[in-house]
Amino acid sequence: MIPFNKPYLTGKEIVYIEDAVKKGKISGNGYYTQRCHDFFEKKYGFNKCLLTTSCTDALEMAAILINIKEGDEVIMPSFTFVSTANAFVLRGAKIVFADSRSDHPGMDEEKLEALITAKTKAIVPVHYAGVACDMDKIMSLAHQYNLFVIEDAAQAIDSFYTGKDGIRKPLGSIGHLAAFSFHETKNIISGEGGMLVINDKSFAQRAEIIWEKGTNRSAFFRGEVDKYSWVDIGSSFLPSEIVAAFLWAQLENIEDIQKVRISHWEKYYNELQDWALKNEITLPVVPSYATNNGHMFYLVCKSIEQRQAIIDKLKSKDILAVFHYISLHSSVFNKTNNIIPELNQSDKYSDCLLRLPFFYELNIREIIEAL
Amino acid sequence: MIPFNKPYLTGKEIVYIEDAVKKGKISGNGYYTQRCHDFFEKKYGFNKCLLTTSCTDALEMAAILINIKEGDEVIMPSFTFVSTANAFVLRGAKIVFADSRSDHPGMDEEKLEALITAKTKAIVPVHYAGVACDMDKIMSLAHQYNLFVIEDAAQAIDSFYTGKDGIRKPLGSIGHLAAFSFHETKNIISGEGGMLVINDKSFAQRAEIIWEKGTNRSAFFRGEVDKYSWVDIGSSFLPSEIVAAFLWAQLENIEDIQKVRISHWEKYYNELQDWALKNEITLPVVPSYATNNGHMFYLVCKSIEQRQAIIDKLKSKDILAVFHYISLHSSVFNKTNNIIPELNQSDKYSDCLLRLPFFYELNIREIIEAL
Repeated sequence: MIPFNKPYLTGKEIVYIEDAVKKGKISGNGYYTQRCHDFFEKKYGFNKCLLTTSCTDALEMAAILINIKEGDEVIMPSFTFVSTANAFVLRGAKIVFADSRSDHPGMDEEKLEALITAKTKAIVPVHYAGVACDMDKIMSLAHQYNLFVIEDAAQAIDSFYTGKDGIRKPLGSIGHLAAFSFHETKNIISGEGGMLVINDKSFAQRAEIIWEKGTNRSAFFRGEVDKYSWVDIGSSFLPSEIVAAFLWAQLENIEDIQKVRISHWEKYYNELQDWALKNEITLPVVPSYATNNGHMFYLVCKSIEQRQAIIDKLKSKDILAVFHYISLHSSVFNKTNNIIPELNQSDKYSDCLLRLPFFYELNIREIIEAL
Repeated sequence: MIPFNKPYLTGKEIVYIEDAVKKGKISGNGYYTQRCHDFFEKKYGFNKCLLTTSCTDALEMAAILINIKEGDEVIMPSFTFVSTANAFVLRGAKIVFADSRSDHPGMDEEKLEALITAKTKAIVPVHYAGVACDMDKIMSLAHQYNLFVIEDAAQAIDSFYTGKDGIRKPLGSIGHLAAFSFHETKNIISGEGGMLVINDKSFAQRAEIIWEKGTNRSAFFRGEVDKYSWVDIGSSFLPSEIVAAFLWAQLENIEDIQKVRISHWEKYYNELQDWALKNEITLPVVPSYATNNGHMFYLVCKSIEQRQAIIDKLKSKDILAVFHYISLHSSVFNKTNNIIPELNQSDKYSDCLLRLPFFYELNIREIIEAL
């Protein structure tokens, strides 16, 4: 059986976990957590990073930081994971779902302005498949209407956006805040895991407090206060050093991992051109302002029936291809609690998008021959 | 330097993590998570268990499950960790702080009834140092006023309560819900980690949904629904298999760990009797309905000055003894957001309680001789 995903190990994960254990500290915010923070801050120029137990938790931190209150509206794509929405719903927000682009599952930047009301507090672009949303357009709207932008960069590690100024910026460095995932299905993994990036410096101090369960413990350890106590809301957002040590082994090998994954993606893309054309299937589009980070390879089939036929065909050859999100606007939860907008593009990706097996040790040829 | 805490390893942690990795699944809710759930359900008769990334997260799940809303009141001791309060504050609750007992830092059961109003939704007893609150009294009040009881059993693994019926019940099995911690300072550890216990069966199905980010994914994998989607609020509460594998190695050795820790506690207790009497220091009290689980050994000094003198004396001999909570009622957060009750017993423990080094590999004699 060829699975859809297979976690890739660099070989040093266990070594570093053993070392973390030997260092005598396995709760959070120790040596390996710091190494991971430093890595991201240096490599991608992120202002401040905080590892979290999941990308969900990073999004929840963001919702707390921007002070989401009952009735605030948050705009995001419908074609996304539940956590993008739940992180804000937990703080009382009403979610306003945007449709996807016709050429890409990311949200249609042209349709955003019509969704903004006096209650809108934030826009959450999701860089689907690691491909950038058009951030110039989104940041400009945010500036005009005084909104926060929180990048859901769960799938977007080591991916870039080049805006009108011609400067290539890493995804996660553009919004006020950004959230990454290290779930085992991602490029860089720690089983479960995530990270909040704080680009807007005004959030940095409070982010540290919220991360440390609402206490000023970090300031205490820096000697800035003489005892630490309860100063804010917060949660236990930080992962153990065991998780951070695992992650560090992955980060050390990010160049190699990315090279292999991007080469897989290109092989799929090049070798499936004729087959796709013949079968009226659309291959992924990467706009000129975006890069491809080798996170995922998907097909957009012409119908739900065609998609099912491909799933069945691959399954008969012991290959697992899987669809993705059921658009949130048509979920049971949204139907019960919110209005149901008509989002045709989002529905299209729910019905017709199919993800092919994608992992480091994959032999692409086997999949291509089976299609 | 003798630290206050030193994580103890059974030797199998790395072996099981390697095995989890080999099994090809390192995200949550896999083989080792299931083993841990089964262990607790069998050994302590807990109805249903769900591992979480922290005890904080287990308490947050509890707050969601009992539908805490803006303005609901939750009664808990002031002498507790911030997360006991924040978990409910995050859902909009007002915290009503109870004083501690004169003979124990746990909350004074006799003073609870006076704190109950029409808005009270739950009582959260904290089994401080693993010593049971008088659960008969608390459960009877809860029954009378139709309140939920959520046991904060962070420190209370393998500890018991014997009520009027003469039946010895494990802590965590008595309230509607209970939360445990596996933080590195606890008896059984996984770096960061926790668990929600669901004793009231009416919560079982929704707990699973909230745990899986508000989706019915668990029902999907059992074949009960044909696709899974967004059905409720929720978060990514489940830890990775890496964390669960580590925890499993600890649980396998719980008998040994408990034997050693309880013997440490008894040695402290027996050998410090005369010294305590001479210095007007109170040793821990374990009421007849409770057991001692060897979680912590603390002194209640006669004054904050005496406590500081002992801390300094031990520090001069390279031994780290530490105080515990700053009572939440007198914290910056509570002062800003709530009324400040007068809680003299709670203040006493904030000022006078001192925790002596306590871990598996500790040589108690060194501490006793240094005092």
